[in-house]
Amino acid sequence: MAKRIARGVFLTEAEVSVESFAAVAGEKEGQGPLGSCFDKVVSDSHFGRETWEQAETQFQIEAVNTALRKAKLVTEDIDLICAGDLINQCIGSAYSVRETEIPFFGLYGACSTMAEGLLIAAVMTDCGIAEHAAAVTSSHFSTAERQFRFPLSYGGQRTPTAQWTCTASGAVILARNSGGIRVAGGCIGKIADLNVTDINNMGSAMAPAAADTIMRYLSATGTCPRDYDHIVTGDLGIVGSRLLLDFLSKQGTDISVQHRDCGAMIFDRDSQDTHCGGSGCGCGASVLCGHFLPMLERGEARNILFAATGALMSPMSLQQGESIPSVAHLVHLRKE
Amino acid sequence: MAKRIARGVFLTEAEVSVESFAAVAGEKEGQGPLGSCFDKVVSDSHFGRETWEQAETQFQIEAVNTALRKAKLVTEDIDLICAGDLINQCIGSAYSVRETEIPFFGLYGACSTMAEGLLIAAVMTDCGIAEHAAAVTSSHFSTAERQFRFPLSYGGQRTPTAQWTCTASGAVILARNSGGIRVAGGCIGKIADLNVTDINNMGSAMAPAAADTIMRYLSATGTCPRDYDHIVTGDLGIVGSRLLLDFLSKQGTDISVQHRDCGAMIFDRDSQDTHCGGSGCGCGASVLCGHFLPMLERGEARNILFAATGALMSPMSLQQGESIPSVAHLVHLRKE
Repeated sequence: MAKRIARGVFLTEAEVSVESFAAVAGEKEGQGPLGSCFDKVVSDSHFGRETWEQAETQFQIEAVNTALRKAKLVTEDIDLICAGDLINQCIGSAYSVRETEIPFFGLYGACSTMAEGLLIAAVMTDCGIAEHAAAVTSSHFSTAERQFRFPLSYGGQRTPTAQWTCTASGAVILARNSGGIRVAGGCIGKIADLNVTDINNMGSAMAPAAADTIMRYLSATGTCPRDYDHIVTGDLGIVGSRLLLDFLSKQGTDISVQHRDCGAMIFDRDSQDTHCGGSGCGCGASVLCGHFLPMLERGEARNILFAATGALMSPMSLQQGESIPSVAHLVHLRKE
Repeated sequence: MAKRIARGVFLTEAEVSVESFAAVAGEKEGQGPLGSCFDKVVSDSHFGRETWEQAETQFQIEAVNTALRKAKLVTEDIDLICAGDLINQCIGSAYSVRETEIPFFGLYGACSTMAEGLLIAAVMTDCGIAEHAAAVTSSHFSTAERQFRFPLSYGGQRTPTAQWTCTASGAVILARNSGGIRVAGGCIGKIADLNVTDINNMGSAMAPAAADTIMRYLSATGTCPRDYDHIVTGDLGIVGSRLLLDFLSKQGTDISVQHRDCGAMIFDRDSQDTHCGGSGCGCGASVLCGHFLPMLERGEARNILFAATGALMSPMSLQQGESIPSVAHLVHLRKE
């Protein structure tokens, strides 16, 4: 049973486990340093479908089905799926879940969605409403680029602080008491906004949210960075990661040894021309499911904080002169 | 502590109560049959802000603040807010929650969002993670119209099956064990899709989801329609409501006596030229908070099922030839 230890911060009492997980990635992600980690690399950016939006749906379906297969489960075993993505009205998720007939909570947390989904799925499992609950998110370079920036055929020049939206999906299935990797606790993010207005510098917009959430969890649990093998952020990228370390160090907390950023890890900085790294809901989700959860499973790490960050603006809100609000949700994963 | 009674269906054990609620509506909604129910009617469609999107944010802020005031609470008392709306990337909610600094789950369930938020807030309260949790949603005629249909200045002709997106917001604050109106149980929706592709006939697209969710709750709890004073849907409108009754009656269940639809109630059919009625996240939320929760509070009803439905398409998914998937989440409210 979960226990509140501070506002928005809770511990589960070791009753929720990661039963299965899977990561599916696109061709460029497959060519990056983590390429061999993914369960499947799909070279066709349309994934056999007619549009990129439908392809993104297909990435989610593939990730969920792979996670189900690995756990020898079928969709009927899953009591709840928490899903979200970046496309307007989250259609990537609605059309993927339509195929499964699983009871469904649609989420919008931008790139924080995987952590948000894991928190909700974990609580629903912990309190017995779900025997198995899943979380899945996705992103697709081509759906995001044309929605948030320019039509691809326009060939717009990317700024140095820009990140590359990953074509990828990650899915996790949680269960009660199945041992292995536990969801030990979580921290629900608050919105931070330091007045960044540059849609090509979202790492900087999101860093304050990550700093706030990580500090709230450390402080509420009375732990320090060296209690964790890794403190993972979703997609701050290179500039945002530097800012995060800076924010925290000004508060007297040094996470430079433990910090990893999925966005900074997924592409090769020198050869893949992705500027500040990867981004998108699928970035953190696929690196979590392809890299960090396997590390925990193999016992190469025992305690990981996964803090996924989301930039909650829209192109219209920026055109209207607004700044970029951001949020970070944190999931504490522990190998027993 | 919540108890699973079927896939996606649960009962709470009478530990979560509605502590406070508020409804704020626009001018046209204020002129409708429920006009006197709302805590505030705002005649300025910009609500003192520069854009309609910012106005929608302001409706949410006003609803949350009014609910807080009525309960003599401040934002610091709220451990979690579940919020969502229809605008791309749910900016109505992100910018409203930014002002509050409350830990935040962003949701996208289209017009089902109020029920989705209530379910998540109820579970988080029931299991002790939140002492107080809030749910809020909104919609705005002018933000929805230009996003989903036509620029307002185009003056497009509305079809007979069209509904009118309400300018409104509703907010509910839940607490543990404060008595009064309880969240007695819930049903998490599955996606239904009967292949409707007409964006001007969303009531028909959503009716099958409402039927499925209501039947799942009745069947899992072993109850029948006469066990409830009202079975309320969010915004099926006139055509969708007729279809819902029809679907259920074919399954041997007659809810015609108990059924109410917020969309069919909020406008006067003869004088307000809104065709099939109201719609939008703010429709169900404001009628719940302005009409049905007060009825429970006054003891005029003791058992209400609130089943809010959402149409999960986007303009782009329809342009790409997809049909409209829909979902309905159900909250059982009981006055002790």
